[in-house]
Amino acid sequence: MGKTDQKALTARSEDQSKWYTEVVQRAKLADYSPVRGCMVIRPYGYALWENVQAGLDKMIKAAGVQNAYFPMLIPYSFLEKEADHVEGFAPEVAVVTHAGGKELEEKLVLRPTSETIIYSVFKDWVQSYRDLPILINQWANVIRWEKRTQPFLRTTEFLWQEGHTIHATKEEAREEVIRALNMYHDFVRDTLAMYTIKGYKTEAEKFPGADYTVSIEAMMGDNKALQSGTSHALTQEFSKSFDVSFTDESGEQQYVWPTSWGLSTRIIGGLILMHGDDKGLVIPPNIANIKVIIIPIYKADTESIVKDHVEQVESELKEAGVGYEVDWTDNTPGFKFSDAEMRGIPIRLEIGPKDVEGESVMMVSRFDGEKQAVKVSKLGELLPKRFEEIQAAMLTRSKEYTDQNTTEVKTDDEFYKLTDAAEPVGYIKCFFNGDPELEQEIKEKTKYTTRNIPLDTYDEDGKCIFTGEPGKLTLFARAY
Amino acid sequence: MGKTDQKALTARSEDQSKWYTEVVQRAKLADYSPVRGCMVIRPYGYALWENVQAGLDKMIKAAGVQNAYFPMLIPYSFLEKEADHVEGFAPEVAVVTHAGGKELEEKLVLRPTSETIIYSVFKDWVQSYRDLPILINQWANVIRWEKRTQPFLRTTEFLWQEGHTIHATKEEAREEVIRALNMYHDFVRDTLAMYTIKGYKTEAEKFPGADYTVSIEAMMGDNKALQSGTSHALTQEFSKSFDVSFTDESGEQQYVWPTSWGLSTRIIGGLILMHGDDKGLVIPPNIANIKVIIIPIYKADTESIVKDHVEQVESELKEAGVGYEVDWTDNTPGFKFSDAEMRGIPIRLEIGPKDVEGESVMMVSRFDGEKQAVKVSKLGELLPKRFEEIQAAMLTRSKEYTDQNTTEVKTDDEFYKLTDAAEPVGYIKCFFNGDPELEQEIKEKTKYTTRNIPLDTYDEDGKCIFTGEPGKLTLFARAY
Repeated sequence: MGKTDQKALTARSEDQSKWYTEVVQRAKLADYSPVRGCMVIRPYGYALWENVQAGLDKMIKAAGVQNAYFPMLIPYSFLEKEADHVEGFAPEVAVVTHAGGKELEEKLVLRPTSETIIYSVFKDWVQSYRDLPILINQWANVIRWEKRTQPFLRTTEFLWQEGHTIHATKEEAREEVIRALNMYHDFVRDTLAMYTIKGYKTEAEKFPGADYTVSIEAMMGDNKALQSGTSHALTQEFSKSFDVSFTDESGEQQYVWPTSWGLSTRIIGGLILMHGDDKGLVIPPNIANIKVIIIPIYKADTESIVKDHVEQVESELKEAGVGYEVDWTDNTPGFKFSDAEMRGIPIRLEIGPKDVEGESVMMVSRFDGEKQAVKVSKLGELLPKRFEEIQAAMLTRSKEYTDQNTTEVKTDDEFYKLTDAAEPVGYIKCFFNGDPELEQEIKEKTKYTTRNIPLDTYDEDGKCIFTGEPGKLTLFARAY
Repeated sequence: MGKTDQKALTARSEDQSKWYTEVVQRAKLADYSPVRGCMVIRPYGYALWENVQAGLDKMIKAAGVQNAYFPMLIPYSFLEKEADHVEGFAPEVAVVTHAGGKELEEKLVLRPTSETIIYSVFKDWVQSYRDLPILINQWANVIRWEKRTQPFLRTTEFLWQEGHTIHATKEEAREEVIRALNMYHDFVRDTLAMYTIKGYKTEAEKFPGADYTVSIEAMMGDNKALQSGTSHALTQEFSKSFDVSFTDESGEQQYVWPTSWGLSTRIIGGLILMHGDDKGLVIPPNIANIKVIIIPIYKADTESIVKDHVEQVESELKEAGVGYEVDWTDNTPGFKFSDAEMRGIPIRLEIGPKDVEGESVMMVSRFDGEKQAVKVSKLGELLPKRFEEIQAAMLTRSKEYTDQNTTEVKTDDEFYKLTDAAEPVGYIKCFFNGDPELEQEIKEKTKYTTRNIPLDTYDEDGKCIFTGEPGKLTLFARAY
């Protein structure tokens, strides 16, 4: 599918946005499409998403949530049933007005999220408390007409899973909201080596129609934050609007308590921005299909012995069940190295005539560049360990980087000194009273928004640095 | 999620269409949705689709085809680039005219199929013969504004996979078209126990924009045929319209040879209609997640010993890796039997006090009703064998049924005598000259359409029974 561009990649430190675009295209993760704001997810990028799906789907099912599928077309009137929801989503929807050669009697929107269509159906699935909880998830595409788009991070169409559950009590709904949050946190930690912070969204930043929203937030390599997964306790306005009610154990009619939670292809953008470097992508082993790239180095007179040696290595990898690729193209070794680095393949095995003699290979780690000569017979044993080490080291770096770029401030002066810096400074942690108007003011002045109120310091009391009123310890950051 | 309706299921022989609707709803496969022609796929139905996806995806990947994702929104002008294609699909498309609060400059259609958007991107992926073939598949939702809809069989929105490949030569494209056809044939045979016939579509029935289309056709239990998967060699008009060309080995510029192939949620409709009976669904073991339903039969004084026995059975099934469910609801055994039959669970294990004494269970097969007392200790060994037998027997019945309901005719008199019957007669096999106008005439007169020209008798020569001209041995049937 065409050669990787030979021109040097723009340095990340030099122009982050250009770097991002180049990595996405050169690593063949995605392409721009002829449709505004929509991207084409190429096989190399889609494989990452498939692995996200596989891993997360297992956790979703283990929690007793069942997959289903609801229509992507939603009557416009459904959106209007819940006031906050329509206010939040109406500006972003795409509207179908004609179909089958005729103008439609009622306009249909392409789902920006599926609460409304799902509750209209849940209504018929629940009569008594015995039918609860209902725990549903769907893997689907959604459309939100965004003003500024960037591949993976913010696209008009994106892929995601959306969990939708209804419960008999507020407390049970809360447990589900937190379960989903923990699931996201653990999944991105263990699979994508991404350190994230769990916390409550402020009133201004919560989901349109939520009682409260919790999120995981991740610090990217450029000190901007990425909301990476959200989980919502919805208000009973939804159950009331769609009349989703049940008879409780004492025979009383009650409205259900709904939750929803989602994680999207945006996470692939997070993966790129958290781990990528000046050479391109760095993929954590646990999410990589191609964990090893073999690069044969030979001339005409050594081709056949190198080839034999490569075959030996291949059979070792096959036996160990390690996904790999061999680069047999006519490109120079230097070009092949760059290409493998651009694609972020965790381990490169260089195999030249000298390695044949030593019955070894030169093993190079993409993450830290560490080089090590390894006996071919030891590969099957060594590689899985190496993958574990790399995975752990990537997560550690992600956490350390986040910690290093988090500053707690005690006054608004300190706050504004930080936000005045030319480049994003990471998280600014301070007590904040949560007032939406004040938050809007700060946002307009500084471009910094609240990310979340971390769960682990939620109980600490303090005074808002802006107003002196009681506040919660809140993370501010520039955000994607 | 609510009890299964206790009213008796409409007999299939009495009212097939009512029976179908009832089975879909009572077995909780799907629900009608508030949006015209769109269905909600419920967890029990979606699990079947997930298993179709998992099985087919493995075969797709094994053939070297890679998954990717292309935008669901397609500029209207793209459709218009290929004359046959727009003629075929324009009447069925849903059109987005407004988005983000504004009228769009160019109308967008919701993909009815993705050839046009994909070729507009393939154009940039291919330069030289070295880049070929490109083998892409996507799992996606598509929208076709159908006049009459029925859950699974024909819905406004449906789920499918669509393979799109481009090749350097016509012959290679042909190989891919046939590979995909064989893949579909083998997959539905081995997983869904569906016997299908491979063959060429006639000119009138081929895909809009195809040079030729091949299909697998399946005979349903009501003697109507269901097109169950199609594979197309597209004309080079597509490559020309989208300028998808390459430099061949001799330096000449050539247009690529495209193929596409798809299988959809329609196949679940086929599963219901092929295997279902007066008691409801019959699911072949290979596609069932819940392969066994355990039905405890007890009174107050025997509950505890039955419960212990059920637990023993459960541990046997767990060890054997057999998916199962226990029906501990308060319903009567009779109700539970009916419910399990409605859902088509392959094996029912009845466990009452007598079974406890004998350290056995009563094993009943959903497919043929065969009853057999089995020692609990033998279950792990016996069940997998039983599943294999049932799977094989279901396929055999499917083939026999198809053969029994296929009639070869030598004259148009015989043909019209058959089509005059009140009920569909199955396949009518005859030589036919393939003339689209004649085909249209026959369709209008009889409601019978050509299904395909079977591959295995493609080389037989004969005279068209309608015109006396040279013809091919063609299958006609009433079709879904």
